[in-house]
Amino acid sequence: MELSRLEKQIRFIVELDKLKTVYRRTYLINDHRNENTAEHSWHIAVMAIILAEYSNAAIDLAKVLKMALIHDIVEIDAGDTFVYDLNAALDKAERERKAADRIFGLLFADQMTELRSLWDEFELRETPEARFAAAMDRLIPQLHNYYTQGGSWKEHSITHDRVVAKNQTMNEGATTLWEWVQHLLEDAVAKGFLTKTRDAT
Amino acid sequence: MELSRLEKQIRFIVELDKLKTVYRRTYLINDHRNENTAEHSWHIAVMAIILAEYSNAAIDLAKVLKMALIHDIVEIDAGDTFVYDLNAALDKAERERKAADRIFGLLFADQMTELRSLWDEFELRETPEARFAAAMDRLIPQLHNYYTQGGSWKEHSITHDRVVAKNQTMNEGATTLWEWVQHLLEDAVAKGFLTKTRDAT
Repeated sequence: MELSRLEKQIRFIVELDKLKTVYRRTYLINDHRNENTAEHSWHIAVMAIILAEYSNAAIDLAKVLKMALIHDIVEIDAGDTFVYDLNAALDKAERERKAADRIFGLLFADQMTELRSLWDEFELRETPEARFAAAMDRLIPQLHNYYTQGGSWKEHSITHDRVVAKNQTMNEGATTLWEWVQHLLEDAVAKGFLTKTRDAT
Repeated sequence: MELSRLEKQIRFIVELDKLKTVYRRTYLINDHRNENTAEHSWHIAVMAIILAEYSNAAIDLAKVLKMALIHDIVEIDAGDTFVYDLNAALDKAERERKAADRIFGLLFADQMTELRSLWDEFELRETPEARFAAAMDRLIPQLHNYYTQGGSWKEHSITHDRVVAKNQTMNEGATTLWEWVQHLLEDAVAKGFLTKTRDAT
């Protein structure tokens, strides 16, 4: 039986519930459990509202919010890939592309195309909206790790140089915030939450 | 010491992490745990993107998304109030008003005022955006309860007549979706997920 437009939309919405069971490496600041991707996506969307004034370029906030809300939906199939895991990074793009095909494909063509385009745009990080949304996505793990006294940095022996190398793309979207994060990271080193380099342990 | 604008914004963002530890009566569809308010807020924001075409009136989607994202932030202090709990409803408005004062008050005046106005507007449910956002907020628990074979309806002995009475405000924002939900509720009764009335058990 052909599903109606509304039936397809509801099926997509019900499917999304699975994102609440995809867990990330970061820990909550106020509880001893890993964060899931749905609540992470909520957090970066609210951050985009609060911090929009720091975008390097003028942005369409509605577009940023849509991107923030859907940027990790592919993790329902592809799982969360830890940003510092070089092996997992090798096939990440392929796993996530397949997931995008299936999940956005649950919708009628017009909505599938709109969401897929937003997701592709976020991944390419070439427009002001994508760069700013990506900056939010890179800012929040630093706050989580700092406010859990090193959290997943310590658990996975991530050093300051790797954190800087991996997150400096924030500079493309929000230079002021990247400068602020660099101070935060220096402070994390000073407080013993983060090791400077592997050799300096 | 006076906090800078950015320091206040970061403090607000860190405070928001607490919403991930506020649990609701609804159960996840794909896991045996209660849903938290942060992931719920994400879900209704994505729903607003997907279902915007069913709004009874023209809406500013960016405004709807902002409302959806912040509508339950007050639960950090006030906790989640079960919609069918008449006792808790008595002081809900007062508890939430105090929470809004404190939490939005973490921001500088311009952002405090913007977010507080959006929250007040959502609560009053008089504008097209507030009515549509509220319809999303009422639609999702029906899906959760239906797809968990009665979930929190059964746990709290909530009957069909009460579900209809409590959720018919959906009709103000999205009549088509309210009609669809009424069929879903009838189907839930037919399948034994929901009891028709207290006397008909």
